[in-house]
Amino acid sequence: MTQVKQITFAARPSGLPDASIFRIEEVALPDAKEGELRLRGLFYSVDPYMRGRMNDAKSYVPPFQVGQALEGGVVAEVISSRATGFEPGDVVLGPYLPWRTEMTVPATAVQKIDASIAPPSYYLGVLGMTGLTAYIGLMDIGKPKPGETVVVSGAAGAVGSVVGQIAKHLGCRAVGIAGSDEKGKLLTETFGFDAAINYNEPGLDDRLSTACPNGVDIYFDNVGGEVSDAVMKQLNFFARVPLCGQISMYNATKPPTGPRWQGLMVTRSILMQGFIIRNYAARFREGIEFLAPLVKAGKIKSEETVAEGFEKLPEALLGLFSGKNKGKMIVKA
Amino acid sequence: MTQVKQITFAARPSGLPDASIFRIEEVALPDAKEGELRLRGLFYSVDPYMRGRMNDAKSYVPPFQVGQALEGGVVAEVISSRATGFEPGDVVLGPYLPWRTEMTVPATAVQKIDASIAPPSYYLGVLGMTGLTAYIGLMDIGKPKPGETVVVSGAAGAVGSVVGQIAKHLGCRAVGIAGSDEKGKLLTETFGFDAAINYNEPGLDDRLSTACPNGVDIYFDNVGGEVSDAVMKQLNFFARVPLCGQISMYNATKPPTGPRWQGLMVTRSILMQGFIIRNYAARFREGIEFLAPLVKAGKIKSEETVAEGFEKLPEALLGLFSGKNKGKMIVKA
Repeated sequence: MTQVKQITFAARPSGLPDASIFRIEEVALPDAKEGELRLRGLFYSVDPYMRGRMNDAKSYVPPFQVGQALEGGVVAEVISSRATGFEPGDVVLGPYLPWRTEMTVPATAVQKIDASIAPPSYYLGVLGMTGLTAYIGLMDIGKPKPGETVVVSGAAGAVGSVVGQIAKHLGCRAVGIAGSDEKGKLLTETFGFDAAINYNEPGLDDRLSTACPNGVDIYFDNVGGEVSDAVMKQLNFFARVPLCGQISMYNATKPPTGPRWQGLMVTRSILMQGFIIRNYAARFREGIEFLAPLVKAGKIKSEETVAEGFEKLPEALLGLFSGKNKGKMIVKA
Repeated sequence: MTQVKQITFAARPSGLPDASIFRIEEVALPDAKEGELRLRGLFYSVDPYMRGRMNDAKSYVPPFQVGQALEGGVVAEVISSRATGFEPGDVVLGPYLPWRTEMTVPATAVQKIDASIAPPSYYLGVLGMTGLTAYIGLMDIGKPKPGETVVVSGAAGAVGSVVGQIAKHLGCRAVGIAGSDEKGKLLTETFGFDAAINYNEPGLDDRLSTACPNGVDIYFDNVGGEVSDAVMKQLNFFARVPLCGQISMYNATKPPTGPRWQGLMVTRSILMQGFIIRNYAARFREGIEFLAPLVKAGKIKSEETVAEGFEKLPEALLGLFSGKNKGKMIVKA
């Protein structure tokens, strides 16, 4: 049996994780059985939701198990196939593949991707989970109408950057909130947002109201906490708040507290809804059919922050929590 | 011109209002002009949402004006009519009529009611705003399915008691939260709730989980605050939270704080939506057609707390904030 490298989940973190929760080790790769594929990882996705899987808590995906490989979205090349429909050289995507340099998996765990539409790594981002998350959250919960104002937090991230670009494509005003002026520049100059706000500068409330002269109709929330508090105050009647993530809270060691917004939600008839993209699998084709032509035409741009080398996976994942990424954070093997 | 009694809004309260914000005075009643009716009030509604109108704040109805009559839902008898389609003796309902013993109003401000279906006061409650609020909030936001568990706070109130009865009619498990054992008895014995919980007793979390062995699918929230916190923790995946009122917060003198629930809402795909019944006027007929046969058949029972005498209006309204009412609080002139 071949020996391959694996990133093992070494210990559950409390609060902000550090490198000690990972261990790189060599493991034996079993031979492929009937119906299985042997894959070599090309691109690995790191995503904020993974922090949730590090806790031993009831959630929509089972927690990572200590001593086992971490897992996530991977674009891989088929090395050998014992499953019909797959041949060596095929490029496939699996949403939950183990963090190993090579892996043996059931063919049902992956699907082939079409590299003629976009570079393979895009299937981890704008044409993958994060792009679909942007599409479903904005369309199904946000229900944007032309002329409305859409505010996005974590706007320079993989999901937020696509939300803003879809909003612009649909004729909305798009305002992005991010953590630096450099990211703000990316929002307005590359992604076409109408305005960008750096939440690390003082006067967030005032700058938001200047950027949103007609109030806020949709708040696509990736971060939570005080940034969200500022936006909530400026929501219009019948505003919609897709709750996609709460990255500012993921490393909290005790339950976070803050303003109670329910009273405002009653008087302004506000809707807030959490969602998880894996519950929308039946809609992925629709989403990709919406996104792919826009990506191909350059109307939706994909920004990637790429770390080189399989061993960079821990550092790349940890970097999400200090906002090291612009756009989608990817590790290239 | 006739002199009539009026309850005047004397001063904006800060925090919990007391009798000093009201003034009873005599005012001159103008004669009815073309298109107007002269009415004598029979039943006056007092409702928690009125507290919001006492603040000088942007909301879905304009604030009460100091020095002017308060206003609310009134069932009245036509004394004289200068409008086609109305005759003396007709009984009408107006959702926003001034708190006067008699009043002159445009005929467009009222509609005739059918006293053969139910007693006139029911049009302020189970067949009026509060019944429709229960119906719309539960059906449109809650979307109950048979076998699901519906928890209602403020369950012994005008809205909550109808929510629980509709839920039972639809095959759900109905669990009501109220502020006394006496109200709890009303919930289970009169309204047919499966279980009642007194939030003034210790151990709310444990008693809730005992009453909801399959978790909570719908939380119809009338009260907010710590009672709601207890229910939020027990929400199931894909739970729905119609936000109808937040009576525990209405008299707060500073913005209330509490747990941030957005993280839980993401991981469990929870929907929370505030709503205001006046935005659903196009659905009132549908709601009444649903409710009226159930009321007539005794399947939905209406409980009323009736104060006798026009001058009791201030006391009745204030009583809502200490839970003095069981079911709908009404003042009979």
